Formats: sequence, structure tokens, C-alpha cells
Amino acid sequence: MSYKSYRYEGLKKLCNTVFEKFGFNKEDSEYITDVLLLADLFGIESHGIQRLSLYYKLIKSGMVEINSEIKIIKETPISAVIDARQSIGQIAGRKAMNMAIEKAKNVGIGIVVVNNSNHYGIAGYYARMAEKEGLLGISMTNSGAITVPTFGKEAMMGSNPIAISMPASPYPFLMDMSTSIITMGKVEVYNKKNQELPIGWTINSAGEDTSNAKEVLYNLSNKKGGGIVPLGGSKEITGGHKGYGFALTVELFTGILSGGLTGNYVHTQDISGTCHSFIAIDYGIFGDKKAIEKNFSEYLNEIRASEKAEGKQRIYIHGEKEIESYEDKIRNGIPVNDNTLKEIDEICKYFDIKLEP
Amino acid sequence: MSYKSYRYEGLKKLCNTVFEKFGFNKEDSEYITDVLLLADLFGIESHGIQRLSLYYKLIKSGMVEINSEIKIIKETPISAVIDARQSIGQIAGRKAMNMAIEKAKNVGIGIVVVNNSNHYGIAGYYARMAEKEGLLGISMTNSGAITVPTFGKEAMMGSNPIAISMPASPYPFLMDMSTSIITMGKVEVYNKKNQELPIGWTINSAGEDTSNAKEVLYNLSNKKGGGIVPLGGSKEITGGHKGYGFALTVELFTGILSGGLTGNYVHTQDISGTCHSFIAIDYGIFGDKKAIEKNFSEYLNEIRASEKAEGKQRIYIHGEKEIESYEDKIRNGIPVNDNTLKEIDEICKYFDIKLEP
Repeated sequence: MSYKSYRYEGLKKLCNTVFEKFGFNKEDSEYITDVLLLADLFGIESHGIQRLSLYYKLIKSGMVEINSEIKIIKETPISAVIDARQSIGQIAGRKAMNMAIEKAKNVGIGIVVVNNSNHYGIAGYYARMAEKEGLLGISMTNSGAITVPTFGKEAMMGSNPIAISMPASPYPFLMDMSTSIITMGKVEVYNKKNQELPIGWTINSAGEDTSNAKEVLYNLSNKKGGGIVPLGGSKEITGGHKGYGFALTVELFTGILSGGLTGNYVHTQDISGTCHSFIAIDYGIFGDKKAIEKNFSEYLNEIRASEKAEGKQRIYIHGEKEIESYEDKIRNGIPVNDNTLKEIDEICKYFDIKLEP
Repeated sequence: MSYKSYRYEGLKKLCNTVFEKFGFNKEDSEYITDVLLLADLFGIESHGIQRLSLYYKLIKSGMVEINSEIKIIKETPISAVIDARQSIGQIAGRKAMNMAIEKAKNVGIGIVVVNNSNHYGIAGYYARMAEKEGLLGISMTNSGAITVPTFGKEAMMGSNPIAISMPASPYPFLMDMSTSIITMGKVEVYNKKNQELPIGWTINSAGEDTSNAKEVLYNLSNKKGGGIVPLGGSKEITGGHKGYGFALTVELFTGILSGGLTGNYVHTQDISGTCHSFIAIDYGIFGDKKAIEKNFSEYLNEIRASEKAEGKQRIYIHGEKEIESYEDKIRNGIPVNDNTLKEIDEICKYFDIKLEP
């Protein structure tokens, strides 16, 4: 598979136009584009513009409602429950994290859970919304079941990412990771590249190790069994039960607390039913904010400066690879693989628009 | 190494006596014993009565202050920061989680962080305190650095467990796990048993895989380098950076937010400086509590009932092994290994008391 680089501005213009053609208003279109392309800028190809065709399908099939009115079901000074009414995840996500941020600024903590939503892009986007406001931000989402519990062979939980962001310098802390050992997006990228998956990531319908990305994708979408193993692997000895526990924690904070669907029901009906949660904490409730940020930054710098493993020049803190990638790609363009380009081409033809190089 | 079983009541009486001999009042002694022996009852040998000799050392060396007065440094309706003033972790932990529980009952969420404390036993004990009050409970603690960051070879983070508990039936959900691939306690148990560690858990001072428990313990306590790898292993391909991210998250929620020490400074001075955090959430802020518990229980039962991997008869939810172990050991006694028995014997001689079989 080959790549061709496109300027960020060109991809942004294209995405904005596509989302407007889908029927979103200008502001919403720009917001969805912003979430999508941040993934590409961060180097998370699996969650970037390659998702455009998925959104295209979801919208065409009616799973995503275009001008759905998001509804607050329940609210307290520190919390809210939102029914996204099948809106695209980014729109519900923005509203929910903004509410959590406002609540945190008022009372110290805000926690907003969302049900009946759709794919919302990278969880890190929302955690970072809080970080940019000088708060500690957390976001989680469930998704259609792809993760197999320890000792099981049936996917019962989503990829269930947890993202956490906190101000620090020279880089903010930003971790954003699935509680499955890898994401579905990564399996899709391997499939598009016709590459074999490393052994230890996925199991087939018989519950055995497999490196066949196509087979895993087929089995998952047809509920034939197998799927992706949790962080820690398929066995207790390597800590698979821990990743499985984190995956359940995400289901608890999304599908369960929001009164929505758990991963094993997401995407099995006509609606998606994805659920999210958004937490913002004003760490000023614990002490002087500047002092807390300084201590945190110093600690992270001590880790960066600690002794390296053989052959390694650098120890990374979560978020710095992404921010370096961001700066690079804004300057030098975003590489898009030819399979994704084919999909974009189809959408362009349908709407009679053009992707500028 | 051989084991001998002791009645729970006998061990309880012994521990209560030992803690009173140490100088704790009757109520505190019973509380510390309760935390310690719950680990044994849950089958977590590494955090149970085998810790008695550690506490003995910490108290004799003055690292644990016996009648220290815990001080609330800062408080809001949803939060508090506590200076444990070198008290034993269980005493600070009880006070802090009780405060978090009260705040959650009043305003929906309570979060209490503690600095300048000591080893507090199993994190799950505190999460379960909230669960028993019909709340979602979370507890985390840092500890002396044993975990090596991805691409590093110097321990910079503690074992940093995260425990989460939530009411459900037939068993409450209770996960309690280190963000390192295994705990230090487990390395100690392997060392006591003279067993080789599985490859993939620990690295030596050169940054290479090792199975030598004694060497790992020596290197860690003498700051010679190496240590335990994070959940996910030592490499990014198996998700080691994810476990590393969770370990940093625990440092953030304990050492950083409390204004205390991070893992790389814990236990390097005359004081321990361990930091904890305690969160309680009244999920009634999101909807009908009974409905939320019912949905959660049903989901967990669906996972239990899902298809099993080849050769497996049962899929476990976090907490059920522990509760079954609890019931078994209350009836049939707690197995204590002969190395631990030797240590207990020394303490008994010192105080001229006796462990009844």
C-alpha cells in the first residue's frame, strides 16, 4: 500500500464540504472535521480521515441522525445525563464535555454521561478540551463489541478507550488508549495494507491465535466469535484480566451509568447506541494550580531523563509523540493511504467535489 | 515451601494483639487487622499477613508514626486533601474514604487525596467501603518505585494499583489491580518460595529479562536499576505504554494532586511519603439506582454466560474469585507459608504472645 501526502488545509476543506453535503450545518461540520483530522495530525491514522467512509455509510443508512436534537435527561450541579438521539458522536461529545467543563469550573468536578450516540472520534480530543481550559480531563466511550473477556471467545466489550489529559510543560500529558490490546481501526489498517497481524492481538472463532486481519473483521461483523484480546493478552499470567477489568470499567462509566447500551448491544440494532462519558476536574480544589502543574511537569521530566533501555534514546510521556507528529504534519502534510483515497474518491464523485493535493 | 492453615479467628486475635502491642488503640488495631486479613481471605497472599513483618520493621524504624494526628489541609464540599502525618496507611485510608463517602452522599461525588502516608494494604478494601454504602468506589495508591517506564530501565513509578467497586448481584464488581504487570508482593512470594519468575515480568539492572526474584528485589531496594514492567509488557507492540500510562495516572491522582511525593521519591527518605486517593460516586445522580444495578448485574451475567475459550469452564467477573475464596477460607482456614510463619514467630517471641492454630 502506498501513501500520498495532502496538505492539512486541503483535507480540512474537503471534510468540511463533505459534512455540509451530508446535511450538517457549517459549525457542526467544522467541529466534526476538527476531531477527525486531529487524529491524522496526531499520527493515529486508524481514527482519522479513513473513518470518512464509515461516517458516509452510517449517515446513508440512517444510523446517524443529521439534525437530531440532543436532550438533557437529568442534571445536577456536578452531573448530567444526555440522550444524544442518534446524533454523530462529535456533536454530543462537544456538548457533553463543555457541560462537564462548566460544572468543574463551578463546583470543582463535572461528570456527564451520554447514551444513544455514535462513533465520536478519538477520546483524547475531549480530554484535551478540558486540559486546554486548565482542567484535568477524562473521556471514555464504549463501542460495538470487539474485545473478548479472559477465558471467553465471544466479544462482549468495545475497544473502550480511556483518555486522560492534564496540563504540563513542555507538553501536556495526554494518554488516549483502548483497553483492548489494539483498536479495531488498527486491524482495519492491517487489512487495507494486506499485512499479517502480530500473534497475540486477536483470536479466531475457535478461540485460537490468528494473524488474519480479514478473518477477524469478518468474524466480528458477522458475530462468528473471536475478536481482539484485552490489554495484557488472553491469559491471566500476562495480566489479560486487568485489561478486561478496565474494559468493564469503561462499560460501567458509559453504557451502564448513562442507562444506555453496553458494547455487546451497540451496533446490533438499527441504531448505534454508543455511550460516552466526560469528566472534568478543577484541580484547584486540591491546592495551588501552578504548583500542581509544576510538580507534575518536573516529575515527567525526571522520567524523560531517567536511564534508557539498551538501544533506546528516548523515554516518551503520553502525548508528546502526538504533539510532535502534529507539528510535523501541519508543515509537511498528512499521508493518506491509497485504499482510503479510493474511498474518498467515491464520496467526491457522489457529491461532485474534488480533493486538492 | 509448605503451608499450614490457621483459623481466621486465631490470626485475627494475633494481629489485633500485635498491633495493640505496637501501640495502636483497640479500634485502630482491629481496623488494620481487618484490612490485612481481608487480603488473605480474598486469596491475595502477597498483601495479607505476610506484610506483618514489613509493618513491624516500618514501626520499629519510626517510618510509621503510631499515634500521629491526621490533618485535613484543604476541604471543599466535594473534596479534601489530607496530610496523614506518617500514620499507617489504613488509618488515613479509613478516614479519607469515609469522608469521600459522606461527600458523595451529600453532593454526588467525593474525592479525597492523602499525602505523607504509608502502605495501606489492598486498594480494594477502600473501594469496597464505598460499594457497601451503595456507591461506586475507587481507590488508588502510589508506592516506592518498582515499575520501569517503556524504553527505560530505571523504576520511576510504584506498583500503583487501581481498585474499583460497584454494587451488583450475585457478586459485587470489585477489581483491584496493580498497573505494573505484577506486584512487588508477588516477587516476594516467588522469592520466599524459591521459584523462578516467568519471563516477561521483570528486568535486571542491564535492562534485560530476568526470572531471578532475589536479584530483582535486591536491585530495587538498592536502586541498582531494573524492576517490574508495566501491564502490557516492556514493549509498545504488546501495549506496555498503556500500563505505563495507567501507572502515571495513579501518580497524578495520588502524589501530584495531593501535593505529596511521586513513586520515585517514596521510601527514599526517612519517611515513607506514600500517597493515596479515594473517590466515591453516588450513581443516583445519573438515574434510578436499582435500575442501574440491575442493568449492570444483567450485563455481567451475560458475560459469564458467553462462550468459553477451549478448555475453560468459566468466565469470571472481577471480585467473584475473591468472594468465593473469602467464603472458603472463613470455613476452612487461611494457609500461611512457612517463611511467613517464621517471621510471625519472631514477632510473637518479641511480644511473648502465641499464634493459636
